Amino acid sequence: MAEYMESLQHLSEQFGRLEGVGRKTAMRLAYSVLDMTMEEAQAFADAILTAKEKIHLCPVCQNLTDRELCAVCRDEARDPSIVCVVEDPRTVMAMEKVREYRGTYHVLHGLISPMSGVTPDQIKLKELLARIGEDERIKEIIVATNADIEGEATAMYISRLISPLGIKVTRLAYGIPVGADLEYADEVTLYRALAGRRDVGDGSSSDASL
Amino acid sequence: MAEYMESLQHLSEQFGRLEGVGRKTAMRLAYSVLDMTMEEAQAFADAILTAKEKIHLCPVCQNLTDRELCAVCRDEARDPSIVCVVEDPRTVMAMEKVREYRGTYHVLHGLISPMSGVTPDQIKLKELLARIGEDERIKEIIVATNADIEGEATAMYISRLISPLGIKVTRLAYGIPVGADLEYADEVTLYRALAGRRDVGDGSSSDASL
Repeated sequence: MAEYMESLQHLSEQFGRLEGVGRKTAMRLAYSVLDMTMEEAQAFADAILTAKEKIHLCPVCQNLTDRELCAVCRDEARDPSIVCVVEDPRTVMAMEKVREYRGTYHVLHGLISPMSGVTPDQIKLKELLARIGEDERIKEIIVATNADIEGEATAMYISRLISPLGIKVTRLAYGIPVGADLEYADEVTLYRALAGRRDVGDGSSSDASL
Repeated sequence: MAEYMESLQHLSEQFGRLEGVGRKTAMRLAYSVLDMTMEEAQAFADAILTAKEKIHLCPVCQNLTDRELCAVCRDEARDPSIVCVVEDPRTVMAMEKVREYRGTYHVLHGLISPMSGVTPDQIKLKELLARIGEDERIKEIIVATNADIEGEATAMYISRLISPLGIKVTRLAYGIPVGADLEYADEVTLYRALAGRRDVGDGSSSDASL
């Protein structure tokens, strides 16, 4: 019989709790740990605890940071009048790579999902409302959630909640990805691209407001 | 700018040292840790250290175990005259799932690879030779390495080393995988299947010796 090693099984279960790690991958990762030296395993365990201890949420935008405020919130050159609302810290990283956006962020840490039982009070929406209430400089909220059911539902919810406060709520433009072949675009994307069509030469009009 | 959080970066590098984890996956796993509670992170770190502390190599067959001898070596019902030589502990798990093999194992923890600079003394070959020298019951060595360059080179090396000692050295049969479509079989597999063809009705003859 194959040996059941409780500590290996337990380690594999721990890996299985990480996002996107299935049962087989978890076991492969657990075996990898056994290939390490004791010092390497110790360094790995320490890295987990150190990251968890040092990194917390920025009290303003709820993004991850190991300082008092996150890098965006403590940068005085950023425009406090625009807040880009995103699902998670990884979206912030993706947006920052563009290097064109000069506003701030608000990280929801989730999306409203009636299917998975995620209600508005389980994501950082209260914090967004409190921030809008406290910071009168905020003029526009850009909802940058994915174009799936949860993303759309959350965008709609935020729009209904915040538009009445006299703050402009916008959504990222949908369309054909740059460099993609029209032939292979799905119907929904093509429909959105058609619906959101713009005059030729109009390309830079909204970029100016960032 | 995107924030550079040293402890997150460091954790991501640690994940990147695990087998089959690239840079992007490593970062995703590191973010997953931040989503855990402090207790969960502590349990994860503990699991790494516990597994590493408790699990060691079986002194007989070099397989992983958390007991003095591994499950196969301490099972007196196993046939000590046949030793199946495998690359790593995962192959043992795969073989044990078949439930037909009743011999023992020897885990090399690697394969000879002149390309990657892995020489015979860097894998557990000395231990295999010592074991053969000490245990006179061993009559057959089944080399169950992959059918790639390293696997073949290692099988050849073991055969040249051990055959002169009067011990039979065999290799797993190559051929068409059960359930596979001949149309899609690659030429090398087809060639091997042709070369290793057997009389119809001969299927159970060698099974009896396991």
